[in-house]
Formats: sequence, C-alpha cells, structure tokens
Amino acid sequence: MANIGVVGSDGAMGKALRDVIDESGHDYSGGADKGDDVQKLAAVSDVLVDFSAPSALQTNLDAAVKAGIPIVIGTTGLGEAHHKAIDRAAQDIAVLQTGNTSLGVTLLAHLVREAAKRLDSDWDIEIVEMHHRRKVDAPSGTALLLGEAAADGRGISLEDNKESGRDGNTGARKEGTIGFAALRGGTVAGEHSVILAGNEERITLSHSAENRMIFARGAIRAAEWLRGREEGRYTMEQVLGL
Amino acid sequence: MANIGVVGSDGAMGKALRDVIDESGHDYSGGADKGDDVQKLAAVSDVLVDFSAPSALQTNLDAAVKAGIPIVIGTTGLGEAHHKAIDRAAQDIAVLQTGNTSLGVTLLAHLVREAAKRLDSDWDIEIVEMHHRRKVDAPSGTALLLGEAAADGRGISLEDNKESGRDGNTGARKEGTIGFAALRGGTVAGEHSVILAGNEERITLSHSAENRMIFARGAIRAAEWLRGREEGRYTMEQVLGL
Amino acid sequence: MANIGVVGSDGAMGKALRDVIDESGHDYSGGADKGDDVQKLAAVSDVLVDFSAPSALQTNLDAAVKAGIPIVIGTTGLGEAHHKAIDRAAQDIAVLQTGNTSLGVTLLAHLVREAAKRLDSDWDIEIVEMHHRRKVDAPSGTALLLGEAAADGRGISLEDNKESGRDGNTGARKEGTIGFAALRGGTVAGEHSVILAGNEERITLSHSAENRMIFARGAIRAAEWLRGREEGRYTMEQVLGL
Amino acid sequence: MANIGVVGSDGAMGKALRDVIDESGHDYSGGADKGDDVQKLAAVSDVLVDFSAPSALQTNLDAAVKAGIPIVIGTTGLGEAHHKAIDRAAQDIAVLQTGNTSLGVTLLAHLVREAAKRLDSDWDIEIVEMHHRRKVDAPSGTALLLGEAAADGRGISLEDNKESGRDGNTGARKEGTIGFAALRGGTVAGEHSVILAGNEERITLSHSAENRMIFARGAIRAAEWLRGREEGRYTMEQVLGL
Repeated sequence: MANIGVVGSDGAMGKALRDVIDESGHDYSGGADKGDDVQKLAAVSDVLVDFSAPSALQTNLDAAVKAGIPIVIGTTGLGEAHHKAIDRAAQDIAVLQTGNTSLGVTLLAHLVREAAKRLDSDWDIEIVEMHHRRKVDAPSGTALLLGEAAADGRGISLEDNKESGRDGNTGARKEGTIGFAALRGGTVAGEHSVILAGNEERITLSHSAENRMIFARGAIRAAEWLRGREEGRYTMEQVLGL
Repeated sequence: MANIGVVGSDGAMGKALRDVIDESGHDYSGGADKGDDVQKLAAVSDVLVDFSAPSALQTNLDAAVKAGIPIVIGTTGLGEAHHKAIDRAAQDIAVLQTGNTSLGVTLLAHLVREAAKRLDSDWDIEIVEMHHRRKVDAPSGTALLLGEAAADGRGISLEDNKESGRDGNTGARKEGTIGFAALRGGTVAGEHSVILAGNEERITLSHSAENRMIFARGAIRAAEWLRGREEGRYTMEQVLGL
Repeated sequence: MANIGVVGSDGAMGKALRDVIDESGHDYSGGADKGDDVQKLAAVSDVLVDFSAPSALQTNLDAAVKAGIPIVIGTTGLGEAHHKAIDRAAQDIAVLQTGNTSLGVTLLAHLVREAAKRLDSDWDIEIVEMHHRRKVDAPSGTALLLGEAAADGRGISLEDNKESGRDGNTGARKEGTIGFAALRGGTVAGEHSVILAGNEERITLSHSAENRMIFARGAIRAAEWLRGREEGRYTMEQVLGL
Repeated sequence: MANIGVVGSDGAMGKALRDVIDESGHDYSGGADKGDDVQKLAAVSDVLVDFSAPSALQTNLDAAVKAGIPIVIGTTGLGEAHHKAIDRAAQDIAVLQTGNTSLGVTLLAHLVREAAKRLDSDWDIEIVEMHHRRKVDAPSGTALLLGEAAADGRGISLEDNKESGRDGNTGARKEGTIGFAALRGGTVAGEHSVILAGNEERITLSHSAENRMIFARGAIRAAEWLRGREEGRYTMEQVLGL
C-alpha cells in the first residue's frame, strides 16, 4: 500500500490515474498541476506519477529528489535536455520514463525487437497505426517506439532507415527500410501493427487499446514496482521482467 | 464456347489468361504482342482480351472494330486520350474497360459506394492497401478506384478531398477527407481495406487477392458476358449485375 | 425535440440512453423499471425506448398503445409469442424492434445481404465474432442477424445451412453452408466479421464497437425517426433509408 | 552445396521441395515414394527431407540411419510410437521433426511462448485460424502447435485447458483456458492468429502463408542446418537460433 501522488491531475490521464489508484487499494495522496503544489505533494507521497508537460519536468524531478521518492514519467514530447535532466535526477532517486506505460505495448515492443533480431533484412518491416480524428501528429509516438525496437533488434538506426508517408512515384521498396503509415478517424483509442513481410509469408504483431485506462493501469503498476528501488533510471521492460 | 484472343500474351497476365481459358472450356484463339498479329488474331477470335500497354491501345481497338468483335481492356495507366479512343470504338463494338477485373474488387467498390452514401460525413473514410516490395507507385490504382467509389457515394470529388501520405504535424483530421495509406513489403499480391470510422464504431470493407489468377478469371468472365452485346461501353459492375 | 422515456432505465443500456438523450438536445421524460411506472412514463413521453426484458414486453407495448405513442424495442431474447404481441401493437402504433440498434451493424447487414446476393455459392461465407469474457452464449445475436442477412441475400434458410462450433474431424467444407466462430476474451465490446472466401480472393465485411454508446445512439436516432409515423412495424434498415 | 533427397516426392510438397532445391543451388539427388527406393536415395544423398506419410516413417528412418545421414521430417499426423522411433534413430543420426517447417510459424510460436510467459492468466488466450475449404480437420496442427507454445509459456497443460468449437450456452469464459476457432473457406493457404485479450487492451500475433513454398523453403533451410550435426533430435527453433 503506497501513497501515490499525481502530477498533471487535471488532465484526462490524471482522472484515469485517480480511478485506478482508487480501485487498486493504494491511497491517492493528492494531485498537483503547479510547481509549489508538487513540492507539498511529494512531501506526503511515497511515489509520484507525472503526466503533466515537458515544461514542468524539471520542477517535478526536483520535488521528487528533495523528498527522496521515486517518480514515474509518462509525459510525451521530451527532448534531449529533458533526458539529461532525468539522468541527473536518477543519480539520487529511482526514475522510470517511458513513451507508453501500457503493459501490452511494452510487451509488444519486446516481441518486435526479438522478431526483428531473428529475421534477415529481406523481411520488410512496416508499421501502421490508427488513432482518432483529433490526433495532430503522425506517426504516433508509440509507432516510433515500436520502430525503435525493430531497428534495435536488427542492429540499425531508425533515423537512417525510416520511411514515412509513402505517396506518389516511390520506386520499389528499399531493402532494410522501416515504413510507417498513419490512419486517422473516428474515436479510435489507439491501434498499432508491426508487419514483417517475407517471401510468401507474413508475421503481424499488433496491439489494440480500448481506452486510456490501460495507460493509467500500467503507470500505477510501474509506481508499485519502482517504490523502494535504489537510485537509477528504469524502464517499463524491467517492470514486466523482460 | 468462345474463341478468345489475348493481346499482351507474353506478359504475366497473358500467361494467367491462357491458363484460365484452358480451364474454362473456351478456346484460346491465340496471342499477340505486336500490331500486325492483332489484326490476324481478331480475325479468328470471337472476343479479345487486352492486357498489353497504353501505347498499343489504338491498334488493338482498330483491330477489334475491323473484325466487328467485342474487346475487354484491362490495361492500366490510361489517360484522357485513351478514354476518348475507347469511346469512339464503342460506337461500333462492345467495349469494357476497367482498372481492376477482379469480381471481388468490383463488388467491393459497389459496397463502398453504398456505405458512403448511407453514412454522414462524420464517418471518416480511410483506405489502406498493401502490395509487394516491387510496386513503384502509391496509392495503388485499385485504392484510387475504391476512393472514387466512396467519393461518388458521398457526392463529393475525390480530387478535392484526397489526403495521401500523412506524415508530421498534420493537425486534426479535416472532416470529409478521404485518406490513403500504402504499405509495401514481401510478396503480397494485393490487399485493400476501406475503413469507415464513426463515433465509437467502425465498419471495415476489405479485399484480399492471393495471386493474379483472379484478375484473369474476372477478365474471362467479362469476355463471356460481353460476347454478343451490341456496341457501347460497359463496366465490370454490369458483368456482376450491380 | 421530443420527450423520450426509457424503459429498463436501471440497466447499463438505460444509463447510456440517458447520456445520449442529454447530449442530443432531446428531453428525458423519465425512466421506468416496473409496470405501473411505464404507464405514467408513457403519458408524459412522445416516444418510448425499451431495453428492459422479454417478460416486460407486453406491459410496455400496452402502455405505448394506451398513450398512442411509438416505441423502439431493443430487448433481446424475444420468442415467437413476443413477435406476435409486437405485430398486434403495430396495428395501433408505430413499433420498431431490432436485435441491434447500432447504425453500423444495420448498414453492415445490408452490405452483407447485397454481397451474398451477387456472389455464387462457391464463395464460402464465414462469420467470426469476438466479445468479452463474461458473455454466456455463442454465437452472438448480432452474428446470427448477419447470418440471416447473408442467407436472405443468397435465397436460402440460415437454419438449414448454419454450421457453428467446428471442431475435430469435420470433413471438407460443405458448399453453401454459413459458418460461425465465436471468440471470447478480455473486455471486447463487440467485433463481427463476415468473410466471403472465393477462389484466390476474399472479401471481409467487419464492424467493431468500442462501447455500448453506439447502441444507445442508434436507438435514439430510431426514436426520432419513429416519432410521428403512422401505425405499423418498422426496421432499423428503414431508419437508415436502406 | 548438398545432395538433398526428397521422400514423398510425388506429393504437392515434393514438387515444391524440388523447386526450392533447384533455386537454392543445392543438388536434387532424387526422389522416392517407396521403401526400396529410399535406401538407394539415401546412399547418394547428404541429407533426406521426408514429407511422405506416417506409415513410411520407420522405413525412412532406417534408410537414413543405414546411410549415416541426417533427416528432416515434416510429415504430420505422427503418434507416440512414431516419436519413439524418431528418438531411437536420433541416437545414431541427426533428426529434426516439426509440425510446421515455416520459419515464420517457428518464430511466431517462440513469440507466443514469450508473451504467454510474461502475462498473467487474466489475459485470455484465443487462437483462430483459417484454411481452404478442403481441409478436413479442425483446429489445424499449426494452431495446436501455437497453443502448445502458449500453454508452455504459461506453465500449464494444453490438454487440460483447451476449449475448441465454442457453441450454444457456454457460460462465461473460464479463466486460464486457451480457446480455438477454425474458419474454412475458399483457397486460403493458412492464416493463424493468437489473441491475448486483457482488460481494455489486446495483443494479436499472426502469421499468414501465401502458399506452400514457405514450408519447402524452411525444410531446405533445416536440411542445410542439420547437415554435419552430430546425432540427436533437433527442432526448428534451433535452426532459427531461438
């Protein structure tokens, strides 16, 4: 039983996190959406879960370090400077940062890495995702996370081999590229498929989210796992024992 | 029982057509890949099936008109001038031209038109297709044919509402657009899905081809249907009685 | 703007209906779960929507007839006697009864009928559905509704051609049968696919529900459409103009 | 470069194997369909590939042992006695027996085992497969192979937890079972999906075969790998380095 504090508690994920904490038997130690509040919140929490914004990251890390408690970071859109800040905090406390807190996506990324590692580069890799009509960027962060897993398994750089938005006279597919396609429509919570297309056979590894509760559930599981760990930077893969 | 002549007999589709003619009980009256041969072929045929090249179209139409026999045209990549030539020939003989001779795709296009007609524009339409790694253009001609059917059902122009190759900071989806995504990989013969994504529900209408025999089979069925028809321009929809 | 009364208001569908009425701009004239309440509810409503239970059907129909208002019936598990009671009520008021109030499923059934009508019986029809782990019967009522549409399009009886629960030494597939397979697991709201498998090609027509709001939304749209209709028995197909 | 002999050379797989040997640069040392021939064939081969029948297994093993060469066995429908015979032969020569020689299916089974191992039993496992209309048994051998991988990953017995042919009043899904559903129709070469359905999310791991060439290709790769190995019984997983 832990006292879990939520940073970014006014957002949609904040509400989902509170629901999951309530149903999990843990205690909700409070929510915060501004800097001062975060320090107070950290003082009464055993662990923080942060789904706020990149601009608030440093403040949130400082609060966790000062209180000497672990922090789970699910905020997306982080840059290089943010990752350095996380590395610094991880010298004092346990930090877990991830682009997708869902257990299912975490496992899928692991399976994609494993599959890409075992298959030759004449198996073409394509990643297709579908999200609701309000999503403003393509491909999704999770699609890129899966692409990174595939590139990692294959021992190549995603940046050098990424092909997104195929359209027009493209010419034949270049061996070794990892293709991305983004579908948008309706209210789809999030679907991702990684297709490995070989000669006359295909493997498809997919994940489908029904709603955002799974991200909240995975974040709370990560918080449970992180509590009591020594300083360092951890991953969702470790939470799942992968 | 008809004598069926194949123009473009040296290509992959030419071989498939010959196989289908043999298994169908019809007679293969011969094949041709050059102009002179086409006239001789037309003279001993009841109907021609043309899967050659746009540059040969006029010659092939002339041969069919001279012999007074119908012609099925499955050649892709035709422009406005080709369509005018077909219209002229159709004043003398029965001509059927189509971008996809498969019965399944023809029926699918009909269903897509019907679905798009019945649903409001808050049902977002997305078309995704997958083809083998050697395909050089995107989206596929069949995807565009399905997009035309959707636009037609909705009473809009595809050209004005087409969105292909989504990538980067796209902003939210614009209501009424028809999206296209192209996957490439392996040896996939051809798969197409039209997704109609509404609020909390989705309809998906798909076609999957195992190999090119279905295109040959549909072309021969079209040839059977066309034989004995009076002059005019016909469609695959009519062959299926749609 | 109509006053809409909900019978079966305590159930999960009752709550969803109330939400949809609130967001639609109509007025919620009240809910009822017992006989006496239904009469009072009908007296202050322009139309009733009934998602209660087969045992309450006669009482609900009587209340609607007495008040002279239309009624939408989404209750499942109705038998022959229930359908006779509906037919009797339909001599006095407008009644719409359906096994699935979703607009998407209604349209899908229409497309399935159309596809089955156009394709020969050497196109094998298979229907596969997936629902959450708590569902107690298989195949789903909606799968059967889609099977009826396919059988109807083909001009055969579903009862005589239904094949469900394939397992063991089945022998080769019998031409003309309509196969059913049921998947159960997780919290899936409802997915249905009708597969038409021909020689070397396949058409798949699918519907996916994200949650039960779509059933409430379709029921309210049916209620709007039904209001002001003369006596008679109507279908969801008519609501969609199919 | 190896001399590869094919037992069961008259069957459809025999022809596919010969094609693959030809395109691979290896030498086809001959084919056999009767006992005497197998001994002669073994004498001039570096390795045997057997896709004949269970009744011929002992003869084929004896021939390989006598010639002191490895043997790949892709014959299906083997019983306990056959497996004992294989174990005996494996004391003298290298033997690889598998229910599916495709590299894709072998990898998929590995991923399924891995996924089932990492997820709790509140993730329901369902396996659905589709094959052509002439297949006489359900579920397919490959579906069962994938079910075994799932059960193995979860540390349970498939036999005790298998649920196939769901139909009628089934009651709610029993936790921990592994469900099977079989679709039949058209000319589908073979499609398998393993669905892991959790709370509000789903992982689906699929394989699709376009034709039987992939089984021949995997068998020849196994033969290459097996050549020069010491006595013992090997698996396709080992060929892939899993």
